[in-house]
Amino acid sequence: MNCNVPTDICFSFEGFCARGGKTDDHKDGWGIAFFEGKGCRIFLDAKSSVASPIAELVRSYPIHSTHVIAHIRKATQGEINLENCHPFRRELWGRYWVFAHNGDLPGFEVNSSSFYIAVGNTDSEKAFCLILETLRKAFPEGRPPIEKLYSVLEDITLNIAKKGIFNYLLSDGDYFFAHCSTKLCYIVRQAPFAGAHLIDEDITVDFNELTTPDDRVAVIATTPLTDNEVWTQIQPGQLLAFRDGNPYIISK
Amino acid sequence: MNCNVPTDICFSFEGFCARGGKTDDHKDGWGIAFFEGKGCRIFLDAKSSVASPIAELVRSYPIHSTHVIAHIRKATQGEINLENCHPFRRELWGRYWVFAHNGDLPGFEVNSSSFYIAVGNTDSEKAFCLILETLRKAFPEGRPPIEKLYSVLEDITLNIAKKGIFNYLLSDGDYFFAHCSTKLCYIVRQAPFAGAHLIDEDITVDFNELTTPDDRVAVIATTPLTDNEVWTQIQPGQLLAFRDGNPYIISK
Repeated sequence: MNCNVPTDICFSFEGFCARGGKTDDHKDGWGIAFFEGKGCRIFLDAKSSVASPIAELVRSYPIHSTHVIAHIRKATQGEINLENCHPFRRELWGRYWVFAHNGDLPGFEVNSSSFYIAVGNTDSEKAFCLILETLRKAFPEGRPPIEKLYSVLEDITLNIAKKGIFNYLLSDGDYFFAHCSTKLCYIVRQAPFAGAHLIDEDITVDFNELTTPDDRVAVIATTPLTDNEVWTQIQPGQLLAFRDGNPYIISK
Repeated sequence: MNCNVPTDICFSFEGFCARGGKTDDHKDGWGIAFFEGKGCRIFLDAKSSVASPIAELVRSYPIHSTHVIAHIRKATQGEINLENCHPFRRELWGRYWVFAHNGDLPGFEVNSSSFYIAVGNTDSEKAFCLILETLRKAFPEGRPPIEKLYSVLEDITLNIAKKGIFNYLLSDGDYFFAHCSTKLCYIVRQAPFAGAHLIDEDITVDFNELTTPDDRVAVIATTPLTDNEVWTQIQPGQLLAFRDGNPYIISK
């Protein structure tokens, strides 16, 4: 989720969570990262999201954030344990970077002399380490303007994506990127707000009651979370940036 | 807390939490890190621990871990916000390192060309970054045996401690270090177990009912958490290592 004002993710998380063992089989752990300014909190659990007391807390306690990345895991590479739960986090240029991957990179290997070393043994964390390493080397002086960063990020993303399926979300609490390799879609909610009904749970929310006219919220997900709204498919190979709830492509 | 078998920290956390706004004035945020193998989860909140729904979860949901680091903050340097909450975490040598500091380093400044850059603006996070930077440079090939690491860690610790008050806990989920600059004490609980009564809350626990004869648990805290047990003061200037609930000094 990316938005222009801090928003809670309780509604979307309710449907998302159901896919972690109830309406879908991504039950090998889950995690969610909330940025608050430069700060970031991550809740992780190797349990399925439908059975996790920590997920219950996140469902019921509204944390307001403009940049949220959540993940439910279906293990392809790496055991079911805490260190293999997404999202992963590292620091670069004095900011936390958070990453979650949906896919599988069977042919992917990295040079072990990388500055960032994976703690777990997923392809996902290794890919994240390579992305940060590449950005760090390209911009040793600090974080560049988004156009320059986008260009390097797109190149390394395309390279990694050759090794398999590489849908991901990446953010430092300011920039927010979504890469579609096979399957990723989004919706932008803004005035006039309407009601939304979840696919995975029989829950409806009237956003009109919860928002102000200036609010704008983008929700990005592998597949649509609601069945009465129009979601936009991101094209395979596309790397979108989001800002203030708006998606855009940066031309090189 | 450091122990030989995964143990929940609910009892100690209850008393500890009370100091975050009830029995003491460390109310400017709090945090707790639990290692599970190489994985690590951190709960953070910029609210006081007595008023935090997340602290309520940690109090009531027993997470079992052998390495736990918790902190309640009384802001000396840096605003009250999420990025300034301890414990801090960074990756080094493919492991997460977690750090919490009690003290104040008014004269402390670091070279901004450090590999690790503080996200927030506390003296504590800057000191942590310098420690990891120093270890990384001393052992570029990977994590050394604890004796070698201890020696470098002790040197940089003594250097930083010259700038003020530097009581800290540091762990990678395997090694566990406690440095006393002015005030730090510990207790080792092992068979025969007895009852313990908190200082900050009128709560008693009978560890005999909750443990097996082989369990050993060390709890390290700024001041004793219980009033019917004998806590050992760590000497100012001492850097202790803990393993399996046992404290020891490593001779160079």
